[in-house]
Amino acid sequence: MKLYIGNKNYSSWSMRPWVLMRQCGIDFEEVMVRFDSFDAGSAFKTALQGVSPTGKVPVLVDDDGLAVWDTLAIAEFLAERHPEKALWPHDARRRALARAMCAEMHSGFGALRSHCPQSLEARLPEVGARLMAERADVRADLARLIALWEQALALSGGPFLFGAFSIPDAYFAPVAGRILTYGLPVSAPVAAWIERLWAAPGVAAWVADALAEQDFLDFEEPYRSGR
Amino acid sequence: MKLYIGNKNYSSWSMRPWVLMRQCGIDFEEVMVRFDSFDAGSAFKTALQGVSPTGKVPVLVDDDGLAVWDTLAIAEFLAERHPEKALWPHDARRRALARAMCAEMHSGFGALRSHCPQSLEARLPEVGARLMAERADVRADLARLIALWEQALALSGGPFLFGAFSIPDAYFAPVAGRILTYGLPVSAPVAAWIERLWAAPGVAAWVADALAEQDFLDFEEPYRSGR
Repeated sequence: MKLYIGNKNYSSWSMRPWVLMRQCGIDFEEVMVRFDSFDAGSAFKTALQGVSPTGKVPVLVDDDGLAVWDTLAIAEFLAERHPEKALWPHDARRRALARAMCAEMHSGFGALRSHCPQSLEARLPEVGARLMAERADVRADLARLIALWEQALALSGGPFLFGAFSIPDAYFAPVAGRILTYGLPVSAPVAAWIERLWAAPGVAAWVADALAEQDFLDFEEPYRSGR
Repeated sequence: MKLYIGNKNYSSWSMRPWVLMRQCGIDFEEVMVRFDSFDAGSAFKTALQGVSPTGKVPVLVDDDGLAVWDTLAIAEFLAERHPEKALWPHDARRRALARAMCAEMHSGFGALRSHCPQSLEARLPEVGARLMAERADVRADLARLIALWEQALALSGGPFLFGAFSIPDAYFAPVAGRILTYGLPVSAPVAAWIERLWAAPGVAAWVADALAEQDFLDFEEPYRSGR
């Protein structure tokens, strides 16, 4: 299988399936398609022609050429292909909860996503402090995330959201990265989960690659002028 | 099971699981929570306190009190509970395609959703014609939807997107409704699918209820001043 991804420092959606597969020991070949711009004639869009029907990353292409182009569908596809990996929680009720959390992430948290774009390499606590002071929508998104994570951690007892590392951990890893980048305030149990998440080999490998990248993309960096 | 929904004329997210369950013969009790406003103190938000952790509809509550609060998670939950209903396509590759389509719907098509809000009862072809002339983003959303539907219909041979009625039909039913409301241009195979969809008993029952409603909600109606 080939997983097409964007820059590791910037592409939060790419991070999810990559981290999931690496952490859970599912073999794949990474194809990096660096962001230059998202215009129709860009090198990025050109490279994805004939590969990704949406012109976006991530897209997973299996050995028979089947393209699965959406992060949540990739997660479900992998969970079905690898039942031995228990990518979703085993218990049906917890699985329903895990899916609702991921689906909420999939369509929601717009304020946090737009005001705190991913740049794993950056440390911008002063921006985070300003956003927390000024933006009720960012505060509401963060409060909801903390509530979700605390609920899952309390239910499972940890170390990850539903016990062993599973899809929701991969799904929220980019948000955990935003919390670190922008220094957003979280509770002690959530801070401890983020610490364990960042130490998980699959997550640590992605973050190390992101830090080693040299691209600085001004259209992804509203708050900085360089690395 | 109880399914909490909003007004049938307006609540596109509520329409999806309701139509799915009704069409596929899954018993449930409907709990209608009419929209008044989405402010914190509204009757709508108050009625959902202690029921929906996001304060939104739809939410499915099973007999043990488990609340599944996201449309896509509800669909997966029902598919697992009722394997005999084949709510997802049986073939693994088609299922991956179906899931990618639904996940794309879940997070995408923002231009169509914001400029063509659901009002099943309305007929606004002049608004649709203007949007098609003026808005490239609405045209792009529509073109992508048509491509998705044509791909699925060509692959399955119909009558529904993946042969028998399945989750993607329910997932795109509200978009089909927008096409009818705004008179948006579609290809012949897509028009025929929409006709079959509107004749399906589960969809027809929802639409009939929507037409019988009396509420006119000005915050859902940018283009009209009354029914």
